[in-house]
Amino acid sequence: MKVIRDPVHNIIYFDKDEEAVLLELIDTQEFQRLRHIKQLGLSPFTYPGAEHTRFAHSIGVTHLMKRFVNKICSLKEERFRQYINELNDYRKQLLAAALLHDVGHGPFSHALEKTTEINHERWTIEIIRGDTEVNSVLHKHGINPHEVAEIVQRTHTSKAVVKLLSSQLDTDRVDYLLRDSKLTGAGYGSFDLEWLINVLRIGEHNGEVEVGLDRNKGLSIAEDFVMARYYMYINVYFHKTTRSAELIVDKIFKRAMELFHDKQIDLPDDLIAVLECNGQTDKALVHYINLTDHTVWHYFYQWSKHSDPILSDLSSRLLKRDFFKEVPMSEMYDMEMWTRITNYFSNQDLLKNYYLAIDDAKSSSYKDSYILQKPKTDEKEEEREASEYILLFDHKGNGTELSKVSDIINSIRNKPISIRRLFMPKQYIEEIFGG
Amino acid sequence: MKVIRDPVHNIIYFDKDEEAVLLELIDTQEFQRLRHIKQLGLSPFTYPGAEHTRFAHSIGVTHLMKRFVNKICSLKEERFRQYINELNDYRKQLLAAALLHDVGHGPFSHALEKTTEINHERWTIEIIRGDTEVNSVLHKHGINPHEVAEIVQRTHTSKAVVKLLSSQLDTDRVDYLLRDSKLTGAGYGSFDLEWLINVLRIGEHNGEVEVGLDRNKGLSIAEDFVMARYYMYINVYFHKTTRSAELIVDKIFKRAMELFHDKQIDLPDDLIAVLECNGQTDKALVHYINLTDHTVWHYFYQWSKHSDPILSDLSSRLLKRDFFKEVPMSEMYDMEMWTRITNYFSNQDLLKNYYLAIDDAKSSSYKDSYILQKPKTDEKEEEREASEYILLFDHKGNGTELSKVSDIINSIRNKPISIRRLFMPKQYIEEIFGG
Amino acid sequence: MKVIRDPVHNIIYFDKDEEAVLLELIDTQEFQRLRHIKQLGLSPFTYPGAEHTRFAHSIGVTHLMKRFVNKICSLKEERFRQYINELNDYRKQLLAAALLHDVGHGPFSHALEKTTEINHERWTIEIIRGDTEVNSVLHKHGINPHEVAEIVQRTHTSKAVVKLLSSQLDTDRVDYLLRDSKLTGAGYGSFDLEWLINVLRIGEHNGEVEVGLDRNKGLSIAEDFVMARYYMYINVYFHKTTRSAELIVDKIFKRAMELFHDKQIDLPDDLIAVLECNGQTDKALVHYINLTDHTVWHYFYQWSKHSDPILSDLSSRLLKRDFFKEVPMSEMYDMEMWTRITNYFSNQDLLKNYYLAIDDAKSSSYKDSYILQKPKTDEKEEEREASEYILLFDHKGNGTELSKVSDIINSIRNKPISIRRLFMPKQYIEEIFGG
Amino acid sequence: MKVIRDPVHNIIYFDKDEEAVLLELIDTQEFQRLRHIKQLGLSPFTYPGAEHTRFAHSIGVTHLMKRFVNKICSLKEERFRQYINELNDYRKQLLAAALLHDVGHGPFSHALEKTTEINHERWTIEIIRGDTEVNSVLHKHGINPHEVAEIVQRTHTSKAVVKLLSSQLDTDRVDYLLRDSKLTGAGYGSFDLEWLINVLRIGEHNGEVEVGLDRNKGLSIAEDFVMARYYMYINVYFHKTTRSAELIVDKIFKRAMELFHDKQIDLPDDLIAVLECNGQTDKALVHYINLTDHTVWHYFYQWSKHSDPILSDLSSRLLKRDFFKEVPMSEMYDMEMWTRITNYFSNQDLLKNYYLAIDDAKSSSYKDSYILQKPKTDEKEEEREASEYILLFDHKGNGTELSKVSDIINSIRNKPISIRRLFMPKQYIEEIFGG
Repeated sequence: MKVIRDPVHNIIYFDKDEEAVLLELIDTQEFQRLRHIKQLGLSPFTYPGAEHTRFAHSIGVTHLMKRFVNKICSLKEERFRQYINELNDYRKQLLAAALLHDVGHGPFSHALEKTTEINHERWTIEIIRGDTEVNSVLHKHGINPHEVAEIVQRTHTSKAVVKLLSSQLDTDRVDYLLRDSKLTGAGYGSFDLEWLINVLRIGEHNGEVEVGLDRNKGLSIAEDFVMARYYMYINVYFHKTTRSAELIVDKIFKRAMELFHDKQIDLPDDLIAVLECNGQTDKALVHYINLTDHTVWHYFYQWSKHSDPILSDLSSRLLKRDFFKEVPMSEMYDMEMWTRITNYFSNQDLLKNYYLAIDDAKSSSYKDSYILQKPKTDEKEEEREASEYILLFDHKGNGTELSKVSDIINSIRNKPISIRRLFMPKQYIEEIFGG
Repeated sequence: MKVIRDPVHNIIYFDKDEEAVLLELIDTQEFQRLRHIKQLGLSPFTYPGAEHTRFAHSIGVTHLMKRFVNKICSLKEERFRQYINELNDYRKQLLAAALLHDVGHGPFSHALEKTTEINHERWTIEIIRGDTEVNSVLHKHGINPHEVAEIVQRTHTSKAVVKLLSSQLDTDRVDYLLRDSKLTGAGYGSFDLEWLINVLRIGEHNGEVEVGLDRNKGLSIAEDFVMARYYMYINVYFHKTTRSAELIVDKIFKRAMELFHDKQIDLPDDLIAVLECNGQTDKALVHYINLTDHTVWHYFYQWSKHSDPILSDLSSRLLKRDFFKEVPMSEMYDMEMWTRITNYFSNQDLLKNYYLAIDDAKSSSYKDSYILQKPKTDEKEEEREASEYILLFDHKGNGTELSKVSDIINSIRNKPISIRRLFMPKQYIEEIFGG
Repeated sequence: MKVIRDPVHNIIYFDKDEEAVLLELIDTQEFQRLRHIKQLGLSPFTYPGAEHTRFAHSIGVTHLMKRFVNKICSLKEERFRQYINELNDYRKQLLAAALLHDVGHGPFSHALEKTTEINHERWTIEIIRGDTEVNSVLHKHGINPHEVAEIVQRTHTSKAVVKLLSSQLDTDRVDYLLRDSKLTGAGYGSFDLEWLINVLRIGEHNGEVEVGLDRNKGLSIAEDFVMARYYMYINVYFHKTTRSAELIVDKIFKRAMELFHDKQIDLPDDLIAVLECNGQTDKALVHYINLTDHTVWHYFYQWSKHSDPILSDLSSRLLKRDFFKEVPMSEMYDMEMWTRITNYFSNQDLLKNYYLAIDDAKSSSYKDSYILQKPKTDEKEEEREASEYILLFDHKGNGTELSKVSDIINSIRNKPISIRRLFMPKQYIEEIFGG
Repeated sequence: MKVIRDPVHNIIYFDKDEEAVLLELIDTQEFQRLRHIKQLGLSPFTYPGAEHTRFAHSIGVTHLMKRFVNKICSLKEERFRQYINELNDYRKQLLAAALLHDVGHGPFSHALEKTTEINHERWTIEIIRGDTEVNSVLHKHGINPHEVAEIVQRTHTSKAVVKLLSSQLDTDRVDYLLRDSKLTGAGYGSFDLEWLINVLRIGEHNGEVEVGLDRNKGLSIAEDFVMARYYMYINVYFHKTTRSAELIVDKIFKRAMELFHDKQIDLPDDLIAVLECNGQTDKALVHYINLTDHTVWHYFYQWSKHSDPILSDLSSRLLKRDFFKEVPMSEMYDMEMWTRITNYFSNQDLLKNYYLAIDDAKSSSYKDSYILQKPKTDEKEEEREASEYILLFDHKGNGTELSKVSDIINSIRNKPISIRRLFMPKQYIEEIFGG
């Protein structure tokens, strides 16, 4: 029994025989690399404790997946025996998918994806299917990598299996809420995990077998869980300081690319290879997996002394936590505000491009866009829709969608969390609007 | 009121007026840089959650220092009024020292200190006294940087003040035990902080006023606290996987230096400047503060593809967590073991230098060598000795040293924790000793 | 410093000099008696851990009151200086009121109040104003007992002071939610107390100075707090097993009174004195304070062997946890159900009176009826209304009522939690409706 | 699946089919009665939160027993397959014994045992073997009650089975330390339960198969566990306030018996039946199980108004928490102290008997006398000895006794915790020794 200690789940076990494939996957270079990719990117600027990595998160999800599968398979539900058998059949594939679901993440994922125009999902699939240590380990243990990839992409034929990894009530979300909540110290994302697992059920809804919660015993925890996510968005993921840091990073990447095209800057070789791969992720993969947070931060430090004043200023601001400030917006004087701003930046397009930033933080309260901003590769829209609710089952196994029985959830159901902010350097705000 | 959330202390406050100096110190580039220096170095290879930084730790120590000082100053001890007044007088200096006590730490401190031959203490003092943002902020708020430096170095005239920051029962140790324990998930370092603070006392011992604990109410917590540290050493700080990782990093640094002297390798410019400063830390400081974990890791990634087979092998091993293994040692056949090993490496000095490693992990159970391996700059040996016990005070304020009343502490008192291990690559062990 | 350990608040301090009045109040016989009155009555039948007493709760409320008052008085709000001074002036009275607010509770409060037709509020006031140890201690320390009584009753002229003890966001509720949640192990009532205190604010609303929360930083915690209470009602306070136990106790009291009027039963002497006091609570007080849970339970044990078959059966059922079961009600065949039930009990009025029970559990989600079912003595209806919302203040101190900015709270605002249940012995249900 | 929430273990499951016997045992009148017997007797006078019952504790022990057995049976130890099979064979008996091990406890066990001269062990056996609901349930489910009784008494032939319930490292002790620690809020008894279970091992020692811990991974937790118990004795179980309360109760019982023999007092009928049963516990059982804390407290309230001045004074002192105070003893003037005391009480034997109390609190640090003061019925001395150590097993399954490898445990090994105190009413102390 291999044991990993974890601040969220305490003890995480892997059986050295039966789960050898997971232990070997963890030891691949592609997975070890997740030690160097932070889960919450720039959030430590707001919550200094939130330094946890995608490595720890991925192991946590795998642990939870095992607990979820064990619980569901222990249910004495003869009516849904076929589903339970299906889960059991796909057990290894599912656990591997849980472990690998984030393996393609790069440093500063959002900014990197924008810059390279390749999303992390594609890299995940490439790592699973391509010529990698991960792929070898899967083959060695008789697991079809394509099936693992399909689970991650939500195109796998067994929806049962897919939804345990990505839906409104999946193991990914359960782990990240608990982990982000505990490590930020913000407390909002906590809920009673033991009870949630205790009330896991399977049942039927719209003619399909689904995983959900006990209608009587699970209503409160379902609400609590959705609310936890809602609070984490408002207070942590969309925190204005973090968003302001992310804007700076976006602008740094943008400036660096401009200078790169003008041959005025060195970029990391591995990044250049990725930028110039023309979508051939298989060829660029060996470079991509060398890119970690460390390389990017190392360059930020270098760039803080670059001769380009914009690049060095932006990089210095990031390192010194001297971010842009929010311009207090009040609808009634928007007009005048914009006039003042426009005048200030007239004839200074470069400045405007880099020092005026509008930020739209958006998520739906009872939907997940934390990791997933758009449908996954090859996924049909309707499949995605189907995963976006939590089901409650009565004792006969008939399901009802949560917002139909919960006033609370219904009240936030169709309201996207949407925060629009305008950021500029403090000095500019003072010059435009006065001290 | 500025609020910082923390996974250990929950809410940490700073008064925007009265503690402006602390907030401004936090915002200096020298302090912000601690975000990029991990507290436990390579421990995440063993405990994946332990990714916390010296930034979070330093803020935690400052918070605890405030709680300790407030508690002591609230004691109605007319007999020790002078001491209490002294504490109050030095309050600002002490809090600044708490915040800055680790500010000179570099990436992989131990290995870097060996390589550069300059210890982190000197950089701390340089940052406090030199031409830095930290120094400016102190001056601006009327605090003499030299006094802050003296507190950190334990050469300050007020021993009362010094011992709250470095002694057997100091705020530094209290924070790191709680933090390392919580973030590793290992649990061993936990103790009841609230009770510890509740039973803080001042009293007299050997003619000096000292801080200690209530003899009746504090005995158990004192034992618990010493034991917490003892367990953390055995199970966390001296964990064989972590030690093995540290050995690899040592070897990488050593090999890189050799190649550097042979001009076969690029080192980071900032590191070169530090290496060639000839002890002129004032001149090299601007480079030193650019060195973070990120740069070192970035180079490890580069070196994993270097043409030198030793450097690339060692670097790859680090990145893939393929460390050396411990050779099981049993005293009786040591002789034969060494013969075999000697034969194996005969005529292969290079290999022996880099692939055979003896590790001595040492600490005294009831002494601190976690951060401090030798007397601090300018400190007399006897001063150091004096800080290495915990005092218990009776209701009249007369002190007794802990090990005199505690059998438990007495039993581990003079026994250093000492673990000697021999490490080699797994393959070599198998070749030498058989599968 | 007197220290009390507590499973909820960890360490609770009382200053032996400045808070001597509180320590002496705790030592009175009237207050010590609360050790023998359980906070949650019959809830341990559902949650075996929930054995905590009104003694521990009352001390917890006092501790919280001190923290609330300290926080509010530390706010640098010159605009509301008068209010802060007022709080400071009434500090002692307020803390005494916090400690004594439940001192008049008797065993099985609800059932006892119904039986004696005197509510616990009156006994609280009697204990504070009457010829008691509590009254003496207050006088001795220069505190006017009438003022303390007025704070408890919410008739005190300083509304500021009153609302800290009874309103939507009062110290009473904060303590009982945290305590009940922790001790039941049910988890629903937990929220981040430290953050709640951190965001406490004062401001103005409808021309009055009020206590509330910071509008930006406090919205999520306000919602979380209201939801905590909502969940505790649904899952704990209104749990069907607990309600069924309460029904049995009601019936036992009712039967005992009938037998008492027929002179067929012994009641505790102290209870008889209370029953026959004709509203002269001053005379009966010496008896009332002898009534604790112990005496009632002792009699339940005796009555389980009484010759009256109804009394002995009901008492035995309570002791053996053999409560009535809920009749599953479904609106559509209510008619038929009632016909069957009516037929079953026809000509058996006694049986019907004692073995058929309709239970209406009611509370408003965003109002408090946990302790308070009706306006307190002498209180005007509008005063009560005013206390039934939580205010959020912007940085200028202008207040908005929570449900105006929170969709979640608004969604549950006017919906009372109302659970109507029909209970009968299991055997009857089977006979009436079939196995 | 029947679920019980618990403040210590969170969720406790019982399988409605496979563990029906446990659920039915819980519903017997003999077991339900444990709801009315507090685990820590008079400790709430010192720690107001410690109101937990033997009911909750017994369920906790059963839950832990299941976890221990499951862990041990999951070990892949072919060498000890026979032992594992044995454990599996006795699984039901063992779980029943865990649930029932305290079922014979009465109110204020120690004082009651002294008064009735029948220890609670005998009642436990009587309840298991006699004509009781418990006995019927066991029979109904094919469990031999005698075997359950033998496990409780440690006379069962399978020592493996016996030691999981009573030894240095048994489920009883694990639960009470965690529970008492959490509910008192004192924190001393906490240790990492998950890790303890994780490192459970079986192995051989002195030719017998035993349960113990992994030598490498379990040493620290073994020490931590022994220390937890040590701290709980010193700080909680032997707390002077609690001991003083226990003395008062002893004296009350003693006085009540004197008055009873003189026919000057009413005792509860059930107690009289027990007192006069002449050792025929089978006949008195029906009365014994009616005796709970409630009846005793009810009588204390009555007796506080009794005409006998000693009985009423002692009872009032208990109710008002006006206990005797400790006389500060200092060896050097013991002589004079005793002279003064002797003079004070000369010719006042009655007073001396009731108001001067010497208390010897004793336990061995690395032995259990918490529940068990003397060998259990029918048990041989050597069997008891064998259970009084914790074993550590190497990877081959060979055991070493903890104190042989742990300096810490060795240091406290042969030192009994022994606290001798002299108590008298405060007033007497002042009169004898001056203010």
